[in-house]
Amino acid sequence: MELLKERIYKDGKVFPGDVLKVDSFLNHQIDAELLGKMGEEIYDLFKDCSVNKILTIEASGIALACFAAREFSCPCVFAKKAKTSNISDSVYTTGVHSYTHGVDYNIVVSKEFLNEGDNVLIVDDFLANGAAMNGLISLCEQAGARVVGCAAAIEKVFQNGGNSLREKGYRVESLAKVLEMDGEAGTIVLE
Amino acid sequence: MELLKERIYKDGKVFPGDVLKVDSFLNHQIDAELLGKMGEEIYDLFKDCSVNKILTIEASGIALACFAAREFSCPCVFAKKAKTSNISDSVYTTGVHSYTHGVDYNIVVSKEFLNEGDNVLIVDDFLANGAAMNGLISLCEQAGARVVGCAAAIEKVFQNGGNSLREKGYRVESLAKVLEMDGEAGTIVLE
Repeated sequence: MELLKERIYKDGKVFPGDVLKVDSFLNHQIDAELLGKMGEEIYDLFKDCSVNKILTIEASGIALACFAAREFSCPCVFAKKAKTSNISDSVYTTGVHSYTHGVDYNIVVSKEFLNEGDNVLIVDDFLANGAAMNGLISLCEQAGARVVGCAAAIEKVFQNGGNSLREKGYRVESLAKVLEMDGEAGTIVLE
Repeated sequence: MELLKERIYKDGKVFPGDVLKVDSFLNHQIDAELLGKMGEEIYDLFKDCSVNKILTIEASGIALACFAAREFSCPCVFAKKAKTSNISDSVYTTGVHSYTHGVDYNIVVSKEFLNEGDNVLIVDDFLANGAAMNGLISLCEQAGARVVGCAAAIEKVFQNGGNSLREKGYRVESLAKVLEMDGEAGTIVLE
């Protein structure tokens, strides 16, 4: 998506350790106009897939997922990060490892809001190692819901989470793909 | 807002301890259609106030704040919940006490995204004791930003956070106001 690529080139900040900061428009300050258009783009990509639910994860996936959900006229469910001690029988849960923060956490979604027969589109801001997406897919599997596909704002192609999902047969669409980053020089190459 | 009131009467669940669960449409599963309309309503209420930024708090404020931000054609910034150990010089921060969960936490917002001269509309899903709203106001004060007003989806009037803010001179608008709740009977009275 050209508009997003231009914005990453303009406002994205690259740091050592493959860190791409886009918090001026995507995940701390949110450019609602841009994310609204990204939601429309996701709708265009998946509009023929009978999507009846969008699934994302708190907190930075919520904005894009909600804008997409409005286009699909369907609800958006966000999985919550939870302490192990909080987990009850009324939720689906799975563990996720965050490579960025070097920690493990659990994500939960209420059994009420994810069901057999749901055609779920998974939406998130970043797709890198795929840990969060795989966690969300696991929640869908537990519910017996069908995963129609995965949509990410930004995919770090070289971290392989996206391609690994594609190899498993999932349709994965990313609105911008990072091919290379140089943290020392502060440069980035998008597809 | 009639549409929201109808939805609360239909799908809101009342539990002992003044707990109103609206997680089927507001803060776990999100009815994007409804929240989009709530964003339009917030725009109608504050459209003459030169709002140039929406401020909310993760995670359940983000959806409504983003839909409102798209109406105002302005960015939405969400304050993050942080561990004390994470707080750097580059953020404004304040402590917030959660009455619901009985814990204290810190909220932070990057100094980059809240500035002197900003006309900030604060948006959140719930307004009860006002702890979160007061925390967000404190972040604006630290930045020298002007608080144009506060908008909440649901105000629990009897918990007095809203009226206490009004007494301090803030304009507070709530799309639905809970006057009474009976956790034993599971009943609720809206204004």
